[in-house]
Amino acid sequence: MTDIVVLVSGGGTNLQAIIDRIEDGSLKDVRIKAVISNNKNAGALERANKHGIDALCVSPADYKDRPDFEEGLLKAINDMTPDLIVLAGFLVVLPKQIISEYKNRIINIHPSLIPSFCGKGFYGLKVHEEALKRGVKVTGATVHFVDEGTDTGPIILQKAVEILPDDTPEVLQRRVMEQAEWVLLPEAIGLIAAGRVEIKDRRTVIR
Amino acid sequence: MTDIVVLVSGGGTNLQAIIDRIEDGSLKDVRIKAVISNNKNAGALERANKHGIDALCVSPADYKDRPDFEEGLLKAINDMTPDLIVLAGFLVVLPKQIISEYKNRIINIHPSLIPSFCGKGFYGLKVHEEALKRGVKVTGATVHFVDEGTDTGPIILQKAVEILPDDTPEVLQRRVMEQAEWVLLPEAIGLIAAGRVEIKDRRTVIR
Repeated sequence: MTDIVVLVSGGGTNLQAIIDRIEDGSLKDVRIKAVISNNKNAGALERANKHGIDALCVSPADYKDRPDFEEGLLKAINDMTPDLIVLAGFLVVLPKQIISEYKNRIINIHPSLIPSFCGKGFYGLKVHEEALKRGVKVTGATVHFVDEGTDTGPIILQKAVEILPDDTPEVLQRRVMEQAEWVLLPEAIGLIAAGRVEIKDRRTVIR
Repeated sequence: MTDIVVLVSGGGTNLQAIIDRIEDGSLKDVRIKAVISNNKNAGALERANKHGIDALCVSPADYKDRPDFEEGLLKAINDMTPDLIVLAGFLVVLPKQIISEYKNRIINIHPSLIPSFCGKGFYGLKVHEEALKRGVKVTGATVHFVDEGTDTGPIILQKAVEILPDDTPEVLQRRVMEQAEWVLLPEAIGLIAAGRVEIKDRRTVIR
């Protein structure tokens, strides 16, 4: 069994995709130990509760300073002894200590085909705004391991999504979620749980 | 009828794709007025001859300096009075004067999903080497209008191509050609010839 902790700041549709794949049996040998949010109003916490999954809020507002919050977040994660940490729309820059303690055991989903439209400043709707502004005809999503950089870690899976003439950032965001993110994230977790993802330099090999 | 001039430095497989689509009738109302190469040994010139198309070599070696060569190239193009200039693997940086005289009437094919793996230094096999080094799982090709920058003009068409575990740069290059370049370039020429491509700021709208 692979125990995962899902970190999320918002509504949690990617979390829902993972829950759905576990419940329908297509994502095997994976258990969500807890969902942790930095935001107590995150819809993701409700989703977790509804499915009987531990839901924790670790908010900067409840800590005296940033190092204190980071320590609290690390402790909350360590308490769950996860095999894998899944960032599913987590808008907090992950503390360096967590990245180093969980090296090659943290994955993130990004709503573009990295290396396009990624790095500092590219998150959420902004990614799609920039893709439309540049006028690309194809975008997509990427699941990758998290390293010290922003969106620079080894890529596990990518899926292309077509951009249509009348797309707004919101419409495009939704299509990228439906066609790519909700498919790729459970798939990547399943591949890792099955021991099929090997990291070689900055690349991954799926066996 | 839309008259095009194809500029090419190498073997000319993209040129061949255009010729094939004209000859099989799927690319209508388009005529190749001439093929121009900077390299007298370019296989593309042979292909042109074989299909009864004017084949010209405009080589820097035959001119006293760079401005003289650029003037010769512009004259060779102007003599053909093209509606559209197609760069199909042309490894010469296009002179500014040609870009301004033929504004929005020059297109290029690039073997990646722009803005990934493009810009100065990214041409030919190098593009695929860099994509494999970064470990992306999806690449592709882009047809775009040529402006003063390198690969910065409005994008007309893009097509994604999957990267496979055992790909070498050469194998990947061939797959991107077969699955994307040879499809996209004739398709883009057809759309332009049919008046279906409109440029809006840095974007195109296909009607």
